[in-house]
Amino acid sequence: MIDFALDAFLEAALREDLGRAGDLTTNAIVPADRLASAAIVARSACTVSGLAAAARTFVLLDPAIEVTLVAHDGDTVAAGTVLATIAGSARTLLTAERTALNVLGRLCGVATATRRYVDAIAGTRATIVDTRKTTPGMRALEKAAVRHGGGKNHRFGLDDAILIKDNHVAIAGGIVPAITAARAHAGHLVKVEVEVDTLAQLDEALAARADIILLDNFSVHELAAAVRRTSGAALLEASGGVTLATVRAIAETDVDLISVGTLTHSSPSADVALDIAE
Amino acid sequence: MIDFALDAFLEAALREDLGRAGDLTTNAIVPADRLASAAIVARSACTVSGLAAAARTFVLLDPAIEVTLVAHDGDTVAAGTVLATIAGSARTLLTAERTALNVLGRLCGVATATRRYVDAIAGTRATIVDTRKTTPGMRALEKAAVRHGGGKNHRFGLDDAILIKDNHVAIAGGIVPAITAARAHAGHLVKVEVEVDTLAQLDEALAARADIILLDNFSVHELAAAVRRTSGAALLEASGGVTLATVRAIAETDVDLISVGTLTHSSPSADVALDIAE
Amino acid sequence: MIDFALDAFLEAALREDLGRAGDLTTNAIVPADRLASAAIVARSACTVSGLAAAARTFVLLDPAIEVTLVAHDGDTVAAGTVLATIAGSARTLLTAERTALNVLGRLCGVATATRRYVDAIAGTRATIVDTRKTTPGMRALEKAAVRHGGGKNHRFGLDDAILIKDNHVAIAGGIVPAITAARAHAGHLVKVEVEVDTLAQLDEALAARADIILLDNFSVHELAAAVRRTSGAALLEASGGVTLATVRAIAETDVDLISVGTLTHSSPSADVALDIAE
Amino acid sequence: MIDFALDAFLEAALREDLGRAGDLTTNAIVPADRLASAAIVARSACTVSGLAAAARTFVLLDPAIEVTLVAHDGDTVAAGTVLATIAGSARTLLTAERTALNVLGRLCGVATATRRYVDAIAGTRATIVDTRKTTPGMRALEKAAVRHGGGKNHRFGLDDAILIKDNHVAIAGGIVPAITAARAHAGHLVKVEVEVDTLAQLDEALAARADIILLDNFSVHELAAAVRRTSGAALLEASGGVTLATVRAIAETDVDLISVGTLTHSSPSADVALDIAE
Amino acid sequence: MIDFALDAFLEAALREDLGRAGDLTTNAIVPADRLASAAIVARSACTVSGLAAAARTFVLLDPAIEVTLVAHDGDTVAAGTVLATIAGSARTLLTAERTALNVLGRLCGVATATRRYVDAIAGTRATIVDTRKTTPGMRALEKAAVRHGGGKNHRFGLDDAILIKDNHVAIAGGIVPAITAARAHAGHLVKVEVEVDTLAQLDEALAARADIILLDNFSVHELAAAVRRTSGAALLEASGGVTLATVRAIAETDVDLISVGTLTHSSPSADVALDIAE
Amino acid sequence: MIDFALDAFLEAALREDLGRAGDLTTNAIVPADRLASAAIVARSACTVSGLAAAARTFVLLDPAIEVTLVAHDGDTVAAGTVLATIAGSARTLLTAERTALNVLGRLCGVATATRRYVDAIAGTRATIVDTRKTTPGMRALEKAAVRHGGGKNHRFGLDDAILIKDNHVAIAGGIVPAITAARAHAGHLVKVEVEVDTLAQLDEALAARADIILLDNFSVHELAAAVRRTSGAALLEASGGVTLATVRAIAETDVDLISVGTLTHSSPSADVALDIAE
Repeated sequence: MIDFALDAFLEAALREDLGRAGDLTTNAIVPADRLASAAIVARSACTVSGLAAAARTFVLLDPAIEVTLVAHDGDTVAAGTVLATIAGSARTLLTAERTALNVLGRLCGVATATRRYVDAIAGTRATIVDTRKTTPGMRALEKAAVRHGGGKNHRFGLDDAILIKDNHVAIAGGIVPAITAARAHAGHLVKVEVEVDTLAQLDEALAARADIILLDNFSVHELAAAVRRTSGAALLEASGGVTLATVRAIAETDVDLISVGTLTHSSPSADVALDIAE
Repeated sequence: MIDFALDAFLEAALREDLGRAGDLTTNAIVPADRLASAAIVARSACTVSGLAAAARTFVLLDPAIEVTLVAHDGDTVAAGTVLATIAGSARTLLTAERTALNVLGRLCGVATATRRYVDAIAGTRATIVDTRKTTPGMRALEKAAVRHGGGKNHRFGLDDAILIKDNHVAIAGGIVPAITAARAHAGHLVKVEVEVDTLAQLDEALAARADIILLDNFSVHELAAAVRRTSGAALLEASGGVTLATVRAIAETDVDLISVGTLTHSSPSADVALDIAE
Repeated sequence: MIDFALDAFLEAALREDLGRAGDLTTNAIVPADRLASAAIVARSACTVSGLAAAARTFVLLDPAIEVTLVAHDGDTVAAGTVLATIAGSARTLLTAERTALNVLGRLCGVATATRRYVDAIAGTRATIVDTRKTTPGMRALEKAAVRHGGGKNHRFGLDDAILIKDNHVAIAGGIVPAITAARAHAGHLVKVEVEVDTLAQLDEALAARADIILLDNFSVHELAAAVRRTSGAALLEASGGVTLATVRAIAETDVDLISVGTLTHSSPSADVALDIAE
Repeated sequence: MIDFALDAFLEAALREDLGRAGDLTTNAIVPADRLASAAIVARSACTVSGLAAAARTFVLLDPAIEVTLVAHDGDTVAAGTVLATIAGSARTLLTAERTALNVLGRLCGVATATRRYVDAIAGTRATIVDTRKTTPGMRALEKAAVRHGGGKNHRFGLDDAILIKDNHVAIAGGIVPAITAARAHAGHLVKVEVEVDTLAQLDEALAARADIILLDNFSVHELAAAVRRTSGAALLEASGGVTLATVRAIAETDVDLISVGTLTHSSPSADVALDIAE
Repeated sequence: MIDFALDAFLEAALREDLGRAGDLTTNAIVPADRLASAAIVARSACTVSGLAAAARTFVLLDPAIEVTLVAHDGDTVAAGTVLATIAGSARTLLTAERTALNVLGRLCGVATATRRYVDAIAGTRATIVDTRKTTPGMRALEKAAVRHGGGKNHRFGLDDAILIKDNHVAIAGGIVPAITAARAHAGHLVKVEVEVDTLAQLDEALAARADIILLDNFSVHELAAAVRRTSGAALLEASGGVTLATVRAIAETDVDLISVGTLTHSSPSADVALDIAE
Repeated sequence: MIDFALDAFLEAALREDLGRAGDLTTNAIVPADRLASAAIVARSACTVSGLAAAARTFVLLDPAIEVTLVAHDGDTVAAGTVLATIAGSARTLLTAERTALNVLGRLCGVATATRRYVDAIAGTRATIVDTRKTTPGMRALEKAAVRHGGGKNHRFGLDDAILIKDNHVAIAGGIVPAITAARAHAGHLVKVEVEVDTLAQLDEALAARADIILLDNFSVHELAAAVRRTSGAALLEASGGVTLATVRAIAETDVDLISVGTLTHSSPSADVALDIAE
């Protein structure tokens, strides 16, 4: 099945790199009929994401390219692992290389960071989730990378769930009227989450039967109290400044969800390369 | 002057977040005629970039929004600095907030990282430059962020300069024939850069009168030797695994340019926020 | 706030009508500086939807047009009611007329049909909801029309809720494994609905804790049995061949939701017109 | 031959349904390599239109899908008729189903309604034609559906023929000056039609040698008079509130054309379905 | 009224020139707040077309630009005539200059060539018309330029009139069956033109009641014979290799139309310039 | 390798010609399964450019079309030469014919004109280069045509080189400050060219170490003086009103580059045709 959105994204990325005049260097030096093969390699250990997208970059530019995936999105691999092999026009390999690697490196970076957080809370009942702090244009890809790293997805956008934040509460005049207004507006398939800053607000949110309650910048101690007070009446999401150093203690409070913005807005790219073997 | 490319990028980013049904939460809770004002604030010290783009995000969504820029792209500011104030429809502020901050945080992150590298080599004659390892769709913005951080730009794409890499050299059968082919193909306004791995290759590149020579993964010792041997006959660019820890020693070899991929592919986002004061 | 999706839809609709050469008749006959005013009128009683969109059609084509909305989306009006007045270039009024009315007529048609279904079940606890059987390109507008008519919205697309149908159940090997797979894949904000054909399947769906259960083509007798058996453990949706003649009896079974495809795929357009008073 | 406009329309329709995250249900439950076959079936008797478009929906999403058309656009079929068979990835069949059926159902609806009008005037010399009261974005498809139902097409847009309406006449200061201005502006390939409300206006239109004269809301008696008075000097089009109940009497006046807006703005969708046989 | 197609064309043209990084020279040298005024000047005598489009280029890039049209599309002006004055940001004037002039020069070139042909046949009853041999992307603009030069327009595309050429005739098995098939397919608003190579074919076309008959590469003697034989039963179009040297003799045969491909495919650009007076 | 920009250009060109309703004539007359073959022929001697693009036009519209290139872009051919043969659906050949020829004719026209200028200066050391006076939307194609004709390319846009013109110099307050500002702004890969009107300005430009100096409207005598004074310190470009009559004398002054705007803005189309042999 063709992913129209992915193809449009990759074509735009290729056109951004090709500009008006195309790959001056390759077109000047590499004969049009020259063939080559190459390996996409992880230079450092990582969790893979974006491999299918990277492979698609080459095929989209040149349908005659043949790609063999050796690893798959979601795999965690050692440094030096060959992720895929590619064969076809040498020009295509050289021209698409940077675009494909830019996509792959970023997405492996997100997946790898997610995997670290997920591993850090292994054995607890919490789930690592992402946020909307994603790269403009890459939300679906980055959210897939979070899944490939073992996490789950929060909202995909402003339109697929209600998330009532402090400013909404202030305007609505309280948590209960905010939730009431939200439920009146949204369809029956839309869940309602509300952000609370205190245990007192948590009680209001529980009274108003929020589906999920985001505990914003709660201490571990407060999180534990919130879990006890809620006792399963709503999903609880810990949020705010979560790091690898603090995530396990948070998870051990028995919250349901821990959202980590850094997964998508600050993960360094993974070190991936294209080794061309003529 | 309208920046068509920026507007198209921001509109796509907003539409990615708004989805089919728009901001369910805000539309349910915030009256359509409610006004509010807000400040864009740097939560941590950073070098600013993307502020004009972030401000444009609000205005594009709602031409009635009024923005006052307090800081400007290129400024380095302390934690807590107000960068801009925004006034208008409360709905617009809440709906555009995340998109604007996603753009701003990333670009401040790039500018801030660049500024650190630039400061680290202060007093040397080297220039920090970026690479094509940018976020797909954001190349022009990220390259502007590098300039805001005090760096300069390398190629914008495959079509605005020749950069002959090892694979090109291998296919051409040597550095001299590669440069010859490149010059025959390109117009008189196109500069020719060639990547070399050894001092012997450097000699070939000098013989072929390359405009710029990229010294790939040279040790500091080798870089110094290259500078002596070149003595101004071409620009020299150090490249490969440059870090904040190593950049000054590299600069002190008197190379002209130091390219740093991490500026654009691995800088963490800066911590920026929108404080809404109803 | 600008609705980018609406503007793109309306511009495409105008361009479809204008073709390559524009409004031959108006440009030949009407002087460019001729002014006129007009009223958008409901020729028959209807529930209004798309009025803002119709007004936007004129303004998008010509920002100098002035529109005054007299009625609003969601109003139910008598035949002959003026919905809006428009003033400006006579050319614009004539050129945009058909496009604006095509949009308005269709959406008023959807809202009016919905209003009839909603009125037919007044006093029951059921809610009328739409389906994905919408006009390609107009889903958001038609779903808004359903809300304007007093209904609520089902899924906006394949990506904002899980709806497990008979074919999915067959492939999964049963309702329970289907729901299990769905929950493992989707995030915590995604509700899971499952379609059942029999009361036995209903029991399975309840056992698997589906959020919503679609009762497909159940008789009124079976619906009542399903309501009793469920007793609030899930939302129940009656679906399949619902008509104005049958909808009240269905609602009186105490199901939560009644989905009606005909609202969006077969409602006749409302009779709306533009009366130009030069 | 590829129909670019059709492909763009179908891709937009699929993307509208797929949203950012794609078919959550199918991707969670149906293995990527699962194959299936299906039949597109007419659940009620209808005249077929849009079958090629519906088939293209599947192939566009997944070029590996194999479609066999059993019926063809323009056929009138009995309830239960298999229109096409489809084989390939089970995921594709399930994901594209609703979009394909939304297109097919609407177009069969238009063709079926047209066929009823055409049959109702069998044996007369009149032709049923459509109007510009079409669904935004679907004009070419709906006009093809009218042809598939046995009708003919009126203007495709504002730019391919002159149609002078009452407001144009008023601004021009009469029918004769309006036609004169139109002829002076338009090329020699453009026909000129004028709308008249009275027999007196008809005389003016004939004097000005209009190619076609639209008789707006004429009674059957007036139509007959108009036909006599015109005696072949121009084509005559009856228009305004035509229904199945009135169309034959209108046709029997010997007018050349009867335009029916309801064909495209108010025809209910035909009942078409996809029966999947794994 | 906004011309969406024009705006899209101009924005694409500006983006083609601006590339990824914008106007490097102007942005480096001209302060952002520098104002300037300029005149668009015809350096040689010409008939004006595209002046509104050229002015729009500046305003589209920068809505603060003020344009005053001194001449208008359709005017014939002497060398040195100021066509419009422009005032606003100096950056905008310099950045948009080349794009605006490229559009204006080409369209004035088309209008000027057309005017020469029209003047050459003054006093005859023939009309100069264009062809579909236009610049891809500029058909509507170039056909307007032909009108500005005093000519009229032939087909705008393959879909707004029937033009049966020799290959169609060969496949249909003759002129009569070709016309019959065309009339059966097309609506009543579509005129039917047929190309003939001989007087014998002309008789067939007349027998089949073609609306227009294209006399392909007829000598002046043959054209005159064709006019006599037709005596008003159809419009006659002379076509094929018409030049300024031959056009008057052709017109004097009393044909109705003379189509000239060279107007749009081979007219040199007019010499227009932007004189900036700071 | 697919050229996305070319495909988008060709698809837009085809859609411009096809309009809403497609090729009425061909669809009415030519059976859908009729096959044909054809030859693209140069009716007059020319230098070929755009042949690959013209061939792509057919294949893009119909992937089943088979094209065999007989000549290649860059070839200079005699009148009557077959450039390519095409086989497949007769409908496709007829429908795409005009679009393909419009592209090919224009580009062969540019290449042919360029070839004449290049031949006229054979044996000198000068190079013929183009300008930015190109057809909007066709810059890359027209610049390729210049290369096919033996010329070289100047800037592709405002963003790939600095070209300081008289207005920039005036605003900067002189040639030296203008060049200084330009170098401070642009990256190390960007060359700096400056336009001068006098030999005095040439001295300034040399002092400021411009990479290229454009000698605007210099007489042959002045050009020779400029060459002597520069003696290789910068590339010299002669520009302004160059014609075939004057170009050789200019080249013999030993300037490096001669830019000729007329190549792209005023070359007549070459006479190319599609001969269909059923």
